[in-house]
Amino acid sequence: MKKTYEVLSSLLERTMALQTALVLFEWDNETLAPEDASSYTNRVIGVLSEEYYRIITGDEMGKAIEACEKEEGLSDVEQAIVKGAREAREDLICVPSEEYRENAQLVADAVRVWTKAKKSEDFDSFAPTLEKVISFKKKFASYRKKDDQKLYDVMLNEHEKDFNSELLDEFFSQLKEGIVPLLKEIKENGKEIDNSFLVGGYPVEKQKEMAEFLAEYVGFDFHKGVLSESAHPFTTNLHNHDVRITTSYHDKMDSSMFSVIHEAGHGLYELGIRDDITQTPVGQGTSMGVHESQSRFFENIIGRKEAFWEPIYGKLVELYPDKLKKIPLEQFVEAINKVEPSFIRTEADELTYSLHIMIRYEIEKMIVEEDIDLEKLPELWADKYEEYLGVRPENPSEGILQDIHWSQGMFGYFPSYALGNAFGAQLYYHMQKEMDFDELLRTERIDVIRNYLKENVHQFGKMKTSREILKDVTGEDFNPEYFIRYLKEKYSKLYELS
Amino acid sequence: MKKTYEVLSSLLERTMALQTALVLFEWDNETLAPEDASSYTNRVIGVLSEEYYRIITGDEMGKAIEACEKEEGLSDVEQAIVKGAREAREDLICVPSEEYRENAQLVADAVRVWTKAKKSEDFDSFAPTLEKVISFKKKFASYRKKDDQKLYDVMLNEHEKDFNSELLDEFFSQLKEGIVPLLKEIKENGKEIDNSFLVGGYPVEKQKEMAEFLAEYVGFDFHKGVLSESAHPFTTNLHNHDVRITTSYHDKMDSSMFSVIHEAGHGLYELGIRDDITQTPVGQGTSMGVHESQSRFFENIIGRKEAFWEPIYGKLVELYPDKLKKIPLEQFVEAINKVEPSFIRTEADELTYSLHIMIRYEIEKMIVEEDIDLEKLPELWADKYEEYLGVRPENPSEGILQDIHWSQGMFGYFPSYALGNAFGAQLYYHMQKEMDFDELLRTERIDVIRNYLKENVHQFGKMKTSREILKDVTGEDFNPEYFIRYLKEKYSKLYELS
Repeated sequence: MKKTYEVLSSLLERTMALQTALVLFEWDNETLAPEDASSYTNRVIGVLSEEYYRIITGDEMGKAIEACEKEEGLSDVEQAIVKGAREAREDLICVPSEEYRENAQLVADAVRVWTKAKKSEDFDSFAPTLEKVISFKKKFASYRKKDDQKLYDVMLNEHEKDFNSELLDEFFSQLKEGIVPLLKEIKENGKEIDNSFLVGGYPVEKQKEMAEFLAEYVGFDFHKGVLSESAHPFTTNLHNHDVRITTSYHDKMDSSMFSVIHEAGHGLYELGIRDDITQTPVGQGTSMGVHESQSRFFENIIGRKEAFWEPIYGKLVELYPDKLKKIPLEQFVEAINKVEPSFIRTEADELTYSLHIMIRYEIEKMIVEEDIDLEKLPELWADKYEEYLGVRPENPSEGILQDIHWSQGMFGYFPSYALGNAFGAQLYYHMQKEMDFDELLRTERIDVIRNYLKENVHQFGKMKTSREILKDVTGEDFNPEYFIRYLKEKYSKLYELS
Repeated sequence: MKKTYEVLSSLLERTMALQTALVLFEWDNETLAPEDASSYTNRVIGVLSEEYYRIITGDEMGKAIEACEKEEGLSDVEQAIVKGAREAREDLICVPSEEYRENAQLVADAVRVWTKAKKSEDFDSFAPTLEKVISFKKKFASYRKKDDQKLYDVMLNEHEKDFNSELLDEFFSQLKEGIVPLLKEIKENGKEIDNSFLVGGYPVEKQKEMAEFLAEYVGFDFHKGVLSESAHPFTTNLHNHDVRITTSYHDKMDSSMFSVIHEAGHGLYELGIRDDITQTPVGQGTSMGVHESQSRFFENIIGRKEAFWEPIYGKLVELYPDKLKKIPLEQFVEAINKVEPSFIRTEADELTYSLHIMIRYEIEKMIVEEDIDLEKLPELWADKYEEYLGVRPENPSEGILQDIHWSQGMFGYFPSYALGNAFGAQLYYHMQKEMDFDELLRTERIDVIRNYLKENVHQFGKMKTSREILKDVTGEDFNPEYFIRYLKEKYSKLYELS
């Protein structure tokens, strides 16, 4: 007879294989699949995710998990895998199979509908689909919710286990108190940073060359990774030996540079997962917040530092001599850090970025907890942008349609971006005790930083939660003060505030 | 209770989804996947193909097929699907599940091993893997074989149902009798065709532009298709709304042009399958021979005609003015039809091509039926090339390692290439009674030819065998005389033979 753990292991192997196939279909859909394929391919995706559902919720799996939970002598890794399997099962066993399948197909369609709506700047054509996505999302959350848990908190916990909206309300109010006055000071101070030279005259072919260079420079391993193009940059992985990132190329050339460093940061996380847990239920980044902490660590904390660019700015000038040969390094670094309230989250500077997230957080809560009329969303969105950022989007494609997430049913996900900023800053202040970032960057020793993160964050996958990682690494629980301190120090210096 | 047919249909849907996923993994592996991913991804592929095996050989499937076979009132399409399911099941139910899985993983590895061996011109590093592949292939054939069927015929029937080696021996001897004297006449006749201008100075970027143009020109629909790059050009499809072709770019510029027309021919076949049978066991091209008849119809019978190039040669000259502005259309058409015995099958001219196939056919029979020592293969290969084509490959990469097929376990496949030539010629002579090819091509009405093939060949998928198609379309059984007549007429004119 097979050993107890082996029975579970071979069932999990089947679920992992199906999930990996689903990841590949999603990747293919976003990067390559022909336009007319979707309805046929979505059928396949529906069947595969039903197959996954069938195994994870099946009796065999239930018995195997229970047997392993009683088993003594399992290793720590095996115990973590059993726990991961239990959680994956509980997420789904409360959802009726028909609804599960319908939702999977709906989401696949919804991404297409969103893509078209965004292109044609037409929120109304997306609203009915969004409504269906929301309705499924709420229904599933109501199945999963425990006791008097809020529906929104259920959604949040899919991406970030140790948090709830009470904690987040407090977090965002701290951010608001820190950022809004700082933004005001910057505006009033009057220092103008010119970043107009970053726009126009940067051929896509050269941007591609730079994107590949940067990914490799921060340590993204092309023997285990791929860089492609898609409308909305993202990272995905089949396992820790196949991690894929995308970017998109625009007139403003720093856009693709920083999106590539960002996605490479996500990629490094997945590449850093240990071999003994990849292809298991704990073999992925532990939460979206920790994922963003890594991507934004590379993009912003490291990637926008002068010391990062010191050794490689010459290469950039060489690529675009007509544009950059008269721009000294210092001016370039100021430009890529310019604070400027704007419409598009992914293009936002590091300071106003969290305000973009706050707006989405407030709207998500209204959608989920207050049943707000979807027709009012574009207006509500514009109002909030005007209030917090002082800019009002004129069309939905630079407003509510800008992000793919809601079409994928990802509610409760956006807060992770802000949490990630805060996690990253907390890690950064701790790491400064052990290493001199400027010196390492100047001497092209990013590997030291990367290896520290691999050792202390990446390798564990889902075996630790975000707050466990913060405690183990920094010796203290989640503390957003570091992020606010980071912003104040950085922007006071850049904008020469008193 | 579900209707009998619906039970089968939903089981088949699951097998189709798994097969589609396997196709996508294979596509991804050949075109994009990072180098180090294979051993991890192959695990996934192994599990998915085992999952497929589990369903197709399971009791549920067996009962569903039997129930449908007894059911009255099924439509023709439904009956064909039931029959297809029965055949797919019988192919596998005789193979033990462990062996099935091992073989799937082995083949995935073997392609990687072959790729490296070819690159390093080292047959010895591939031989042990090839030996394993052959051993599985033979074992599976022995499980499948009926009565006193030859093992090689079992392999052949996987790709071409209505044929056996007796028929093929006769076919190849007819070809030999037709081609060898013709080749001799051409050599003795002394007419020299200069095709040296096709080599060198054709930038890859422009070759890509031409490849896309040609695919679209022959009717490959990019709303339902993709063109990518891979080491070895191939066609695959997820269903009839997602068909993918690849090419590779070389110094000799006609190489990518004709490989794209060839693969587009395969692609048109899969795009032409009816909507009501796609994603079912009969929703693919019926046999490799018929597939090759379509690809080589477009590549050679149409694609190398002067009338084909008349309307578009100007575009080619425009792309490469330095190379082609002094080359008149007639000279270009002679060059792309030049007969020249050579090492590489995929680069072979239309006349000597079938000799390349004959060599593989003879060697395959020795491997399968005579247990020949693999170490001797490179030598044997070289001897046969010297005998039939008068050229002797100096290294295995331009000899025995040139083709991917054997690494994939595709024995009994090569004959389809020669059969395809013959099927295509038989169709061509029949179609000439109904249409004027030169006139259609000159006036850019390829759609008439394409639609005829869609109507009479493509749409049926596996619902008719190759010989049934030939009978239904041309009114006679398979007859290789047409192909020999085609070659004689074409090359007598080109080389001005008496």
